[in-house]
Formats: sequence, C-alpha cells, structure tokens
Amino acid sequence: MVKAADKEFVKEITPQGTDFSQWYVDCITKADLADYAPVKGCMVLKPYGYGLWERIQAGLDRRFKDTGHQNAYFPLFIPESYLQKETEHVEGFSPEVAWVTHGGGELLAERLAVRPTSETIICAMYARWIHSYRDLPLLLNQWGNVVRWEKTTRPFLRTTEFLWQEGHTAHATEEEAEAEARRMLEVYRDFIENEMAIPVVAGEKSPREKFAGAARTYSLEALMRDGRALQAGTSHNLGQHFAKVFGINFLDQEGQLQHVWQTSWGVSTRLIGALIMVHGDDRGLVFPPRIAPTQVVLVPILPPRDRSAVLTRARQLEGSLKELYRTTLDAREEYTPGWKFNDWEMRGVPLRVELGPRDLAKGEVVLVRRDTGEKATVSQERLAEAVGEALGSIQDGLWQRALAFREENTGVAATREELAVIMEGRRGLVAAGWCGRDECEEEVKEKTGATIRNLPFQQRAVTGCLNCGRPAAHFVYFARAY
Amino acid sequence: MVKAADKEFVKEITPQGTDFSQWYVDCITKADLADYAPVKGCMVLKPYGYGLWERIQAGLDRRFKDTGHQNAYFPLFIPESYLQKETEHVEGFSPEVAWVTHGGGELLAERLAVRPTSETIICAMYARWIHSYRDLPLLLNQWGNVVRWEKTTRPFLRTTEFLWQEGHTAHATEEEAEAEARRMLEVYRDFIENEMAIPVVAGEKSPREKFAGAARTYSLEALMRDGRALQAGTSHNLGQHFAKVFGINFLDQEGQLQHVWQTSWGVSTRLIGALIMVHGDDRGLVFPPRIAPTQVVLVPILPPRDRSAVLTRARQLEGSLKELYRTTLDAREEYTPGWKFNDWEMRGVPLRVELGPRDLAKGEVVLVRRDTGEKATVSQERLAEAVGEALGSIQDGLWQRALAFREENTGVAATREELAVIMEGRRGLVAAGWCGRDECEEEVKEKTGATIRNLPFQQRAVTGCLNCGRPAAHFVYFARAY
Repeated sequence: MVKAADKEFVKEITPQGTDFSQWYVDCITKADLADYAPVKGCMVLKPYGYGLWERIQAGLDRRFKDTGHQNAYFPLFIPESYLQKETEHVEGFSPEVAWVTHGGGELLAERLAVRPTSETIICAMYARWIHSYRDLPLLLNQWGNVVRWEKTTRPFLRTTEFLWQEGHTAHATEEEAEAEARRMLEVYRDFIENEMAIPVVAGEKSPREKFAGAARTYSLEALMRDGRALQAGTSHNLGQHFAKVFGINFLDQEGQLQHVWQTSWGVSTRLIGALIMVHGDDRGLVFPPRIAPTQVVLVPILPPRDRSAVLTRARQLEGSLKELYRTTLDAREEYTPGWKFNDWEMRGVPLRVELGPRDLAKGEVVLVRRDTGEKATVSQERLAEAVGEALGSIQDGLWQRALAFREENTGVAATREELAVIMEGRRGLVAAGWCGRDECEEEVKEKTGATIRNLPFQQRAVTGCLNCGRPAAHFVYFARAY
Repeated sequence: MVKAADKEFVKEITPQGTDFSQWYVDCITKADLADYAPVKGCMVLKPYGYGLWERIQAGLDRRFKDTGHQNAYFPLFIPESYLQKETEHVEGFSPEVAWVTHGGGELLAERLAVRPTSETIICAMYARWIHSYRDLPLLLNQWGNVVRWEKTTRPFLRTTEFLWQEGHTAHATEEEAEAEARRMLEVYRDFIENEMAIPVVAGEKSPREKFAGAARTYSLEALMRDGRALQAGTSHNLGQHFAKVFGINFLDQEGQLQHVWQTSWGVSTRLIGALIMVHGDDRGLVFPPRIAPTQVVLVPILPPRDRSAVLTRARQLEGSLKELYRTTLDAREEYTPGWKFNDWEMRGVPLRVELGPRDLAKGEVVLVRRDTGEKATVSQERLAEAVGEALGSIQDGLWQRALAFREENTGVAATREELAVIMEGRRGLVAAGWCGRDECEEEVKEKTGATIRNLPFQQRAVTGCLNCGRPAAHFVYFARAY
C-alpha cells in the first residue's frame, strides 16, 4: 500500500501537448536525471543522467579508438592572447567567455578564458609537436568540460558549463582533413542512430552557421517531438586557418615546409536532451535499450503472507538476468507494485518483469514493454532469451517510430509564405530550395523563425529559392531549432 | 641504420644519482607522458600519459561501483559565499583559488571560484536532496578537473589544474561515516599496491595536516626512490562540520531531525608521479604490467634482404598476442632495432619480444624484461603463455623491489638530531615517537625539513617524543615529502 507520506513521491509529468517545455523539465527533474545548480545556468548531473553520459562516452570512445584516435588532456585555461589569434574564432566566442582575472590572491597579468572550446590552446601545442610528415596525421580527442556564458539556459540543451568531447586532428593534405571531418560525422551518425535510435540528417552547414574559424562545418540534425530540430553533433574542416596563425608547419616528403590541414569535431551532453525529446511520451522518459542505464527492472508482487518464496525467486531471476542485461530488482517494501510500475515507466526503463505468487506457481513471469505497454507471459526457463528478444524489438520499434515521426513531420515549401504557415502549425523539417545568398537565409529566419539546418549530403532536385525565386543552388532543410 | 637526421630523436635521460628532479622531468617529457602548457603551472597530458590515467580511472571506477558508489557531476564554478561557509575550509583553500569575475561581457555580481575541491557545492545539493533516513547513505563520486593556484609546480605532482576523482558520501551515523572513510582508503590501497605495485603506509594524518574542514584525514604514504615521501591518496571523515553549516538534515526512523555524517576522498593524476618515481631507473620509465598502457612491444629484426618473411610472422604474432595483452608492433622502417630497444625501454614497456631471421628459422622469439634486462628464448608456439608468465613475474618483481627499497630506507630516530642526520643523508621514512603536540611537530619540521606523514594504523610501541622527550602518544612516520 502507498502510505500517506509516500504519496508525494508519485511524480506528475505535464503532458507534452499541454506544455512541451514543462514536460521536458518535468522528465529531467522527476526522473532524477539532473537538478538546477545554485550557479547561474549550471546544472548538476545526477547519477541516472550521468549514467547516460557514461554510456555515450563508452560507445563513442570505443569508436574513436577503433578509427585510430587517442585521448589527451589540454588545460582548462586559455590565455586571452591565444583566443584572439584567429579573427573569426575570437568574434564567435568572445561574447560567451568566462574570464579568470585573479589567482592565488593576485591580479593576473593576462586574463585567462575558461575554455569555450580548445582549438587555440591545442594548436599552440601542435605547433610545438609537429615538425615532419612523419608526425602526421595527429589524431587526438579530449573528454572534458567547457564553459559558454549563455543568456537563456535549458538543462542539457544550453548550460553555462557542459560536458563534451572535442576531437582535434592535423593532416598533411586537404583531402585527408576533409575525409577525416566526414568520417567522424559518420562515426557520430552510426552511434546516434544505432545506439540512441535517433534518426539524423547529415549535411553541411550554410556559411552563416558554420563554426567560427572553420572552412566547412558538417552537422547531424535531429527532429524533436515538438517539431523543433536539434543539432546533435558537428564536425569541422578547419582548412589551414588555425595552422597559419599558430604556425603549425611540417616538412613534407620533398623537404618543403607546409601548413597542416586540420579538423575538429564534438558532441556534448546535449545528446541527452535529444534522447529525451525524441523518444519520451506523456508518461515520461523512454530509453532505447542499448543506451538505457537500466535495461530491465524486476518488480516482485508480494502477497500479504509468505513473501519470501516470491522474493527468493525474484533474486534468483535477477542474478541470472544481471549477467546479460543491466538489471535492477526493486524490492523496496515501502512502495506498492503499482507505484513502482509508474515510477520505472517515468524513468524510461525499456522492459519490466513482474513476478507474483500466481506467476511463481506457474513458473512464469510477465514482461511489459515501456514503448508499447504490451504484456507477455513467458516461462521463467526462457526468461533470459525472451528478455533479449524484447529488448531487440524495443530498440527497433523506437527507431521505426522515430523515423516514421520524422517522415510525417517533413514538409516541403516552395515559398517563404508556405514555410511560415508550417512553422505556425506543426513545424518539423521543411525541404526547400535556396539560392545560397546570406540575405535570403537572414530574411527567412526573420520572417518565419526557421533557420537552415543543413544542406543534406543527399541533395534532391529543387528549382527556385523559396525566398527570392532565383534559381536554387542547394536543397536545404529549414526548421526552428533548439 | 640510424640516419643522421634521426639521431636527435635518441633520448637522453639524466641519471637519477646526478639530479633526481631532472631525471623525473626528462622521463616525463622524453617519453611523451606530458608537456608544459603555455599557461603558468599547467601541463598537457599527452596520449601516453593520459593512457595511464585512463587505466587508473578504469581500475578505480570499477572498485567504486563494486562498493555501491555512483558517478555524478557538479558545477566547475562555486559562488564565493558557498566557499566561505565552513571556516576552516575557506582558510585552507582561499589562498589557492582562481576567480572568475567576468562572464558574457559583464562583471559578475558575485565572484565564482574555479573549484579547488567540491565539498561546498555538493553539500548545497545534498541539503536539497536528503530529507529522510531512506535517502541515506548517499554514495557519489565525481571524475573531473580542479584548480589550485600553486607558486611552484612540478608535472603530475603539483600543477595549477589537475585531474582527479572526489567521492562525497552522507550517512545516518558517525560509525557508518567512519567505516566509509576507512573502506575507501582500503580501496585505494588495494588498487595502488596490487595494480601499480606501489607499497603504501596507511594511517591517520596529524591534526595540523588534516584536510581543511575534516574531523579526521586518513592517508596513504609512498616512498619515492630519492627518499622523499609522497601522499598517494586521502580519505576524510568530515564529521558533521559541513552538514551543520549547509543544513543537511534528515528525519531518522524515530522521526527526529538529525545532521548527516559525511566523508570525502580523492586521488589524482599525482599517482602517475608516484608511479614514475617508485619504479623508474636510469634508462627511464618502468611500468608494472597491470597499469602499463602497452604491456608488450614486438620488434622485428629485419634482414637486409627478404624482409617480408620476418615481418609477416611478426604481424601474425602481434595478432595473437593482441587478444590477450596490450601489444604494439614497432615496424617503423626509419629506426634500427637497437634504437627501438632503447626507446621502448625509456618508455617503460614491461616486456619486449624480438623476432629476427634466425629466430624465425628456429621457430623461436627472444623475450627481454624491462625490470631486470633478463633475456629468454622461447618457442613461438608457447609465446602467449610465456608472455603471460613473464608479465606476472615482472609485476611481482617490481612489487618486491619497491617493498625491499622501502624496508631498506625506513629508519628509526629516538631524537630530533637523529632524524636530522637521516634527512641530510639518504632520507627515507623514519619511525619515531611523538607526544601529539603541534609545537613539537612544528619544531621538527623547521629543524629537519621532515613532516609527520601519518600515524600508521599499525601502531608500534614507542617510548618518548623525539622532540621533547615527553611520553609518546603515537608512533609516527616522518619524511621529507613532495
């Protein structure tokens, strides 16, 4: 029975249709993913939220190493003079910087930026380390925290400090750098689609939206359930912009001094925001099994008397499941099974296993899927097998559902007015032609709130620019974005 | 053949006996563990050094989780008012703080400390999260970076920014907190001794040396090859000091409001400094196999003609070894085998496998141990087995050698004068009696440069205080410390 004192713990989630933003915050705080910190714009990642990040880290780190990258660690602080070397870069990041001005009780001779990204400090080191073509390619990655002072913040999506990884590579040729930038975008796509079950559109950013200091920026764009897009990962071909200002030179095989060609690429805890907003529903979080910190929750339904038989069997089943799946046994006595069902559903655990006295007698258990609510009775003997099948089916089901949602919410606009109508309605991704001029991009944004998400690699035939009607240079996706 | 242009790459290491500090720095920079950063007191962890940290992280993280802890992440920035709440704590850390005063182009209303440690921000959150005995114990750990503004710095041992983990727990009773503080020290001891082969003395810090804000601090003390001690890990029983000032209260089972009892504990990249200085020799680094990023290096000795037979076999052997051990094949053509031998020895790789044309003909390889230089010829058929045996033997040999070194360098002093003589000579750990008074501790430090490392858990009988001759309250170890 739920005791009076426990009732307050039954969590209420605002429905998505009522207020999507509030639904999002409810999910995060009530499922204990994160909490607001007493520092403006910062959040605390609680164990359940950090567990997601640990799984993202593990999955990506393995892929980075499989593609020949190594991890390193560069300083948190960047001298102001370094940040100012690359003109576009400093213009892009300066307004967002947190500055350390005092250390050890003294005013510093030069202000130190708390890194908003590490291109400049890493390039300073690369200039010291790279001398010969034999030192190339240099393929490093860093896991760490960065700080960008933001006016409006939202947990996981935009916080003053966030956790991320940033890859930084140097190459002997432009072709290699371009191939690396594209390869790492593909590594991200593989992880995000196959592990997180989030469909993404891979493409190139428009010049206005590219990274400050890059030659070209590639991005993955995902569609959230409120019809807004979210940039889920970026990879930059930096060209020789940084190599020139930091003097990263090497002697090539012919003994000629050359500038290196560089890339950088990153994903952040933002991915957790995407995970929530792509799969969640009105009952709370829904996690794809491959990324879920807990894949299976086992809830014993204890009779008033002789509780030990059910509990003993539940512990046995937990033991055997644990070897194969991330399993939690919820044997707490202060909550009813019904309360636990709601609670674990809210927390997004993909599969629930119920074991009551009647199940025990029949040698069965009941499996309940989080994604569809579907129930199935299976014999205890083939539990491990059935759980494996169910988790596979849930992973696939969530992927298909997200893919179908994106298809249903991808429209076409021949004119800016058509785009505006869609943006006032269900939003989503909108395919359109674009002439390639900044002023059209700017005007569309001003009038509709939609921005060019990217120029997809899979270009389609388009005739005219949705804004000016001139011949279209590119097929693009517009959306309102987080 | 070593080409003229490559000669500069043959690394020279200053002998330990000539200048231990220079030997230490040579090892770090020439073996590519780390490099100096262009920010005062900061270093860059290069892939080989970061690889050690990844192994330390993996080994400890598993142990933390096995003892019921979960990871979380708290903000980098701590408002000045939070840092000032616990009197001892603020006095201890304020002089070392780096302050953020500007963010987003504006002067901040309140300065933000870049965390030197996270007790205060974490306690602020615990006060929000803990309400009932059911919320206890709360067992969290954080992996991250901290900043302490240091006047003199040394790579890994004392840098402005460093990487570490900090555990923070809250308990219902004093006994539980005490047990936790002791348990985590034991987790550290197990890891440091069994994986890193570094013998440590576990004990309690004197009140003068305890953590700012703790009731009691426990430490592990290791002896370096220059006779100086290094604190390798600490665990603090915080009592209710922080709970009282941050108001971390809970209703106990009787419905009474109580303050929680807390602990915190941490180890840092400093452990890498200990690893270098406990095992290294005049040829460079020596890594115990369990912690070594590369356990086995395979160097083919290629004949002038028909190189492919040796190389092909070397690749086959690499393939089979890789499944069991962290193996690198050094097939670089621009260096001679002799140059490679020196290079990998300098980098501390525990075991080398050599394969030349004669070995190939006989179906053999030569194994060379880094710790003893011992060579053994083994048949290729039982290579994997022989490598496993050799690695086990090296791990054990390094442990025994470090233990013997510590025994040989542990002395006894009945008086301060005796201690002073030892400190002017070979140094090492010195066992002595201490009355327990601050003034004696202070005077000994002033006159001999030695500090009380800790009051070992394994107390021995002592008669008088080495400084004042009064009855000794404790058996302690003195040493000059890093």
